[in-house]
Amino acid sequence: MRFTIQRDQLMNSVQDVMKAISSRTTIPILTGMKVEATEYGVKLTGSDSDVTIESFIPVEEDGIVLVENIEPGSIVLQAKYFPDIVKKLPQQTVEIEVDDHFNVNIRSGSAEFHLNGQDAEEYPHLPQIQTNQSFEVPIDLLKDLIRQTVFAVSTSETRPILTGVNMKVESDDLYFIATDSHRLASRKIPMGGNVQPLSFENVVIPGKSLTELNKILDDSQETIEISVTENQILFRTKHLYFLSRLLDGNYPETSRLIPDEVKTTVYIDTKELLQSIDRASLLAKENRNSVVKLTTKENNRVEITSNSPEVGNVVEEVTAESLEGEDLKISFSAKYMMDALKVVDCEKVNIQFTGAMRPFLIRPNENDQILQLILPVRTY
Amino acid sequence: MRFTIQRDQLMNSVQDVMKAISSRTTIPILTGMKVEATEYGVKLTGSDSDVTIESFIPVEEDGIVLVENIEPGSIVLQAKYFPDIVKKLPQQTVEIEVDDHFNVNIRSGSAEFHLNGQDAEEYPHLPQIQTNQSFEVPIDLLKDLIRQTVFAVSTSETRPILTGVNMKVESDDLYFIATDSHRLASRKIPMGGNVQPLSFENVVIPGKSLTELNKILDDSQETIEISVTENQILFRTKHLYFLSRLLDGNYPETSRLIPDEVKTTVYIDTKELLQSIDRASLLAKENRNSVVKLTTKENNRVEITSNSPEVGNVVEEVTAESLEGEDLKISFSAKYMMDALKVVDCEKVNIQFTGAMRPFLIRPNENDQILQLILPVRTY
Repeated sequence: MRFTIQRDQLMNSVQDVMKAISSRTTIPILTGMKVEATEYGVKLTGSDSDVTIESFIPVEEDGIVLVENIEPGSIVLQAKYFPDIVKKLPQQTVEIEVDDHFNVNIRSGSAEFHLNGQDAEEYPHLPQIQTNQSFEVPIDLLKDLIRQTVFAVSTSETRPILTGVNMKVESDDLYFIATDSHRLASRKIPMGGNVQPLSFENVVIPGKSLTELNKILDDSQETIEISVTENQILFRTKHLYFLSRLLDGNYPETSRLIPDEVKTTVYIDTKELLQSIDRASLLAKENRNSVVKLTTKENNRVEITSNSPEVGNVVEEVTAESLEGEDLKISFSAKYMMDALKVVDCEKVNIQFTGAMRPFLIRPNENDQILQLILPVRTY
Repeated sequence: MRFTIQRDQLMNSVQDVMKAISSRTTIPILTGMKVEATEYGVKLTGSDSDVTIESFIPVEEDGIVLVENIEPGSIVLQAKYFPDIVKKLPQQTVEIEVDDHFNVNIRSGSAEFHLNGQDAEEYPHLPQIQTNQSFEVPIDLLKDLIRQTVFAVSTSETRPILTGVNMKVESDDLYFIATDSHRLASRKIPMGGNVQPLSFENVVIPGKSLTELNKILDDSQETIEISVTENQILFRTKHLYFLSRLLDGNYPETSRLIPDEVKTTVYIDTKELLQSIDRASLLAKENRNSVVKLTTKENNRVEITSNSPEVGNVVEEVTAESLEGEDLKISFSAKYMMDALKVVDCEKVNIQFTGAMRPFLIRPNENDQILQLILPVRTY
């Protein structure tokens, strides 16, 4: 194998593929990165067997030659060293050559690296998804779907299904839903007829996979193709192939969690509320989920307080745009509330309470696509 | 006590003073920050008993009022919470008030914090340095002195004196010298008659103190006053007071380490050499001090190589500006060499070797104020 490649393109692809490679995998060869050269370009592959990422660098793009002098072949390189080497090479052009004994030669300018590679034949054959069951969404919309839900997945393995994000189609809408059983984050987008012919209704994607995918994707209005099979999901753009296993099991029905009556409604500036809760949580550094209390007051005012007996207490008032319904005193996790307020992406937010012991809803003012639900904390 | 203060100025001072406060001190009250208001302004104090930092915010500076409504007094605040509170306060103006029971009230906009303070009387009385033995240097020059030497102090406590930087005056020059016994960094500056009347000749300042001082000082051509007593050193600018203990013991005589004969001289581009050594060290990630080998070649060329049997090897040639004297093969720590090359602050560097087993010298081309010495590594 041999090829000459542009360093910056190689670097970008290496960084994307690295997101799937773990040094703690049980299959030793998966600590490596597979490099494959064909007449069409160079393909890099990384996998931890849960997630597989492939990145392709074509011979030419937008009239610019990216790869040349290709002799087809493949090799597995140690992922621990290869990325740093590429990053620090002195010249924009990099030549990679492999002999029959898996000796790899990386040359750039006057620098020359000799690495011990591994036989690409030993790299596991990765599952190829065969399905016509695919649909497309704009990349920036997919990134929103992920960002607005994935933070709410459970980090505990006691109920593994909750470590994933539930993707489902219901009456022409595509939903992403995540819950750790103390809070829930949901985002839907209308799909028009786009998802109609799909056989899947309901799958659960590991939160970790979506977090990595979100890091790799650049904001763009180009579309990404999503294909689903029984146990895998594939996200594909022009040069990227991101495959993740799905989680086994049934995702709980979450719609029944959403209260259908409202006793108190607060309509308030998102940032003002967020910052006041941030301040109120400062004194409870010790506890991971510091609890703050919200109390409705006269004249549309909302009081945010928190108390740490050893340290002191905080009191702050925020004037809401409007405040309707019953008086209320409610305590909740400052972190959950801040997580939710950060993703509503709207200047004003509507909060609907159904009493101090019932879950409450946070929705952006302008649309019904985002819904955040938080369970209050009992304080005595 | 009571005063109203501008948040940004308070924040800056708090951040400076925090550098002296450790949560692991054996004297509990030193985990706090002392705040003292007088008619002249507000003084903050932090200390871990090795280092004490005071920062002063005057009532008025450059015609701008920084502190007002002062009722003199003092309090000790928990340093764990106070900085974050100040940082996140909603308004530019902050009001701090303390009652007779050490209850502290911090108000800004509609936010109000109540903290439990501690009696400032319990805060240790900090040593006041009484000496006329002081001299001044420009702040940016002091920062250079620190930056070009402090990285070479020993991190091991086996010879505590080597964890400090030796400051000494010799024939009208002020020296900063650091060594961990494998390498040495030295910087001198001519003092003119400036240091003449000083009684000190030779003190050792903890490297950690100098590192913290360097972080606090902003690059500036204003001067800083340095005062030395038997066991303490004080650095003082207009509003900052930085006191450190000195290390006990005699600093080793380092001048005899510096070889007086030269067998091979390499005159070379600093950045090119630095980057090639950086690349050569990439394959030896495991070892903290990866070893690279330098070999002189024909036509002014220098070959940098490194070899990690399991991983591979690197070869790179750098063309020197000139290369004189005996042929040479020498191995040394890549990290030590990079540390030294990073601080010579000169495009070209002179490296003088006295054989493969003797220490070698690195000097910037343009001046004799900076000297870096490295001991080679034996390889077989």
